[in-house]
Amino acid sequence: MDAFFKQAIDGLREAGNYRVFCDLERHSGAFPKATRYRNDGSTHDVTVWCSNDYLGMGQHPAVTAAMKTAIDRCGAGAGGTRNISGTNHYHVELERELADLHGKEAALIFTSGYVSNWAALGTLASKIPGVIVYSDELNHASMIEGIRHSRCEKRVFKHNSPEDLERLIAADDPARPKLIAFESVYSMDGDIAPIADFCDIADRYGAMTYLDEVHAVGLYGPRGGGIAEREGLMDRLTVIEGTLGKAFGVMGGYIAASATLCDFVRSFASGFIFTTALPPALAAGAIASIKHLKQSEFERRQQRRNVEKLRAMLDARGIPHLENPSHIVPVMVKNAAKCKWLSDLLLDSYGIYVQPINYPTVPVGTERLRITPSPLHTQADLDHLVGALNDLWSQCALSRAVA
Amino acid sequence: MDAFFKQAIDGLREAGNYRVFCDLERHSGAFPKATRYRNDGSTHDVTVWCSNDYLGMGQHPAVTAAMKTAIDRCGAGAGGTRNISGTNHYHVELERELADLHGKEAALIFTSGYVSNWAALGTLASKIPGVIVYSDELNHASMIEGIRHSRCEKRVFKHNSPEDLERLIAADDPARPKLIAFESVYSMDGDIAPIADFCDIADRYGAMTYLDEVHAVGLYGPRGGGIAEREGLMDRLTVIEGTLGKAFGVMGGYIAASATLCDFVRSFASGFIFTTALPPALAAGAIASIKHLKQSEFERRQQRRNVEKLRAMLDARGIPHLENPSHIVPVMVKNAAKCKWLSDLLLDSYGIYVQPINYPTVPVGTERLRITPSPLHTQADLDHLVGALNDLWSQCALSRAVA
Repeated sequence: MDAFFKQAIDGLREAGNYRVFCDLERHSGAFPKATRYRNDGSTHDVTVWCSNDYLGMGQHPAVTAAMKTAIDRCGAGAGGTRNISGTNHYHVELERELADLHGKEAALIFTSGYVSNWAALGTLASKIPGVIVYSDELNHASMIEGIRHSRCEKRVFKHNSPEDLERLIAADDPARPKLIAFESVYSMDGDIAPIADFCDIADRYGAMTYLDEVHAVGLYGPRGGGIAEREGLMDRLTVIEGTLGKAFGVMGGYIAASATLCDFVRSFASGFIFTTALPPALAAGAIASIKHLKQSEFERRQQRRNVEKLRAMLDARGIPHLENPSHIVPVMVKNAAKCKWLSDLLLDSYGIYVQPINYPTVPVGTERLRITPSPLHTQADLDHLVGALNDLWSQCALSRAVA
Repeated sequence: MDAFFKQAIDGLREAGNYRVFCDLERHSGAFPKATRYRNDGSTHDVTVWCSNDYLGMGQHPAVTAAMKTAIDRCGAGAGGTRNISGTNHYHVELERELADLHGKEAALIFTSGYVSNWAALGTLASKIPGVIVYSDELNHASMIEGIRHSRCEKRVFKHNSPEDLERLIAADDPARPKLIAFESVYSMDGDIAPIADFCDIADRYGAMTYLDEVHAVGLYGPRGGGIAEREGLMDRLTVIEGTLGKAFGVMGGYIAASATLCDFVRSFASGFIFTTALPPALAAGAIASIKHLKQSEFERRQQRRNVEKLRAMLDARGIPHLENPSHIVPVMVKNAAKCKWLSDLLLDSYGIYVQPINYPTVPVGTERLRITPSPLHTQADLDHLVGALNDLWSQCALSRAVA
C-alpha cells in the first residue's frame, strides 16, 4: 500500500497543496514572537501573523495562572469520559459560564470545536425524524462532516444568501422539521452572515437555527458573546456553537442551547459520550479567559485598532486585501506558487510567519496570505510586515490595488 | 422540538439508561481521593475506583511539572491548526517519542483517541480504492463511526475470533485491498485479542492491520508499548493507535505507522487538518509521562499487585467477577437496577465511586461495576471497597460466586 500512499502524496506536491508544518515555539509573555525550528535543527526568531489566538489570551496571566492552579489541585488529565469518573467540577463551572455568555439555559463542552460541530449536528440531524438541514455552501468541514455523517436530507444554499435559503425552504414540505446551519464570521474571507434575515426565515418556516460563532466568540459583542450578541439575536438562535481554542486561547468546543437540547446531545452523541473529558486545567483556563473577556473591552479595542492600521498601511502601498467587516485581513495574491513563494521569503528573510492559504481551502485564483492582527502586534511589527510585503510585491511583480 | 427531545430523554430514564454525571474534584498528590459535589452544592470525600488514569500518572510530578513549564514557556493553547501556526515544537517531539515507543517510522497526534480512530480509519477506508475493512464486533464506537463514515465495504467478525475473520476474508476477492481493525485490551470485559493469529491471517491474505491499544499503552510491555510490544508483534502491525488520556494521564490520541502512511493521514484526514492543535502543555505532559513509563516498571508492578489482591479478596467473599488477563476487574451484577442501586449506595454511604455499566455499553444481563485498581490504592482502600461490596451483596440478595 505504501506505493499508493506515496502516489497520493506526490499528487498533492505536484498540485502545490502539500502541507509543510512550521515548527514553532511561541514565547508566553512575548506573543506574537516565537522561535522557529528549521529542519536541520537550527532556529530563528519570528513574528506570528496568522494565529487564531486572536487576542493573545493564550498568554494572559489570569489564564495561565488558572491552568497551573488547576494542575496543582486536580492533576494533568480528567481521568475518564464525562460519565465514567471524568467530570471535574471545572467542567460544570465552565458549562455554566458558557450558558451565561450566550444567554442560554445550558451549555455542553466537547474536546474541540470540530467535535462539537460534528457531534452536535450529526446527532440532531440523525435523530430528529425527517429533519432537513439547510447548510451554507461555505460551512466549515466539521459542520459538513457532521451533516454528512447523519445521512439526513440536506440542501446547500448559496453563501450568505437569505434569498436562496428561502427559495429552498419554501419548496419543502412545511410539516417536516428543519434546521438551518451557518457561521457568523467566515474564516477565510472574514465576511459575516445576515443572521437576522436567517432567523426571520426560520420563524416563517418553523425552522431551528444552528450558528457557528468560532471566529467571533470573545471578539464581538459587549461581553464577547459573538456577532449574535452584538446584534441582539442570541435568543433567536436554537443552538450557538463556539470554541475555546481561538479568541479564548485554550482548546475545546461547545454548544449553548436549551437545557433539553443540551441534555439530548449529551445523551446521544457518540463523539461526546465515548471520549476522555477535557483536562481540568483547560476548563479552568477557559473559565478565566471567558470571565476576563466578559468585562474587558481593552483587547478587542486594541485588536480593532491594529486591524484598521494594517488596512490603511496596505492601502497606502496599494497591496490588495479583501474588504470585510471583521478582524481577518486576507491579502490577495491570486496565484498558488507566488503565494507559497511570498510566505517562504517572509519567513526565511524577514522573520515574518504567515501561512499561505491555497486550494482546496480557498478557490483557485483566490490564493492569499490570511493575516490576523492581534492586540499585541506593535507599530514596529506593522511597519516591518508592510515594508516586507511592499518589497516582495515589487520583486514578485504582483499587481497593486488602485489606491 | 423540545417535546421531542424530552420524550427521547424520558425514554432513556425509563430504560434506566439516563446518565447522571458524578461531579468530582480529584486531588493531585492524593489520587485516588476526590471531592464529590452533590446537586445541592454540598461536598464529601470519595475514593475513585473507576478511573482510566490507570497508573495515576495524572498526578506524577514529572508530568505536572512538564505541563506547568510548558505553560510558562509557550502559554495556554496552540493558537491554530497544525498547518496554520499551531504546530509547536512539543508536538514534533511527542510524535518522535511515540514513533520510538512503538518501533515505527512515524507517529501522528490527534486531539483525542476518539478522533484518532475516527479520522485515521475514516481516511484509510474511504481513500484506499476498493478496500474492505474487517472489524471486530466489539470494536469501540470511535472505530465503528470511522468505518461507517468512510462508507467502505465492511465485514464484522465474531469477537476475538481468528476463525470467523479467516472465513470472511477467504471469501473475498484476493485482489482487493484489506484492512483488519481490532483492539488489544477490550475495555468492558478486559479480554485480550489474539494479535499474532490476526497478523498471521493478515499475512496470508495480504491485509493491513490496525490495532487500537488505548487500554494497553503505558500498561503492558517492557517500555509500556502495549500488548503488541509485550508479545513482540509491533513490527507486524500496519497501524498502532493509542491514547494519551488513559495510562499516560493527559489527553489526546495518536497513530504510529510508516512515515508514508502517517503523511497520508496527515494530508487527507479532515478531523486532523481542520482542528486546533493540542495545547503545548498537554504534549509536554504526555512526553514526560511516556518517557517515565518507558523506563519505570514500578507503577505497572504495583498496579498488577493491587489487581491480584482485589481479585483474591473478591474470591474470598464469593463476589463474582469476570476472569480476564488484564487490569480491568468487572464485578458482575447482571441487573441494571441493582447495578445502579449498588453504585449509588457505594457513593452515598461508603464514599466509594464506581460508575455502573449498563446497556447499551454492555449487553442486558451483564451489567457490572467496572473496577480499575491503580498502583495508588492502599490496603485500607481495598479493605473498605471489598467490605462495602460484601455488605451490599447481602443486602441486595445478590448471588455469590462459588469460592
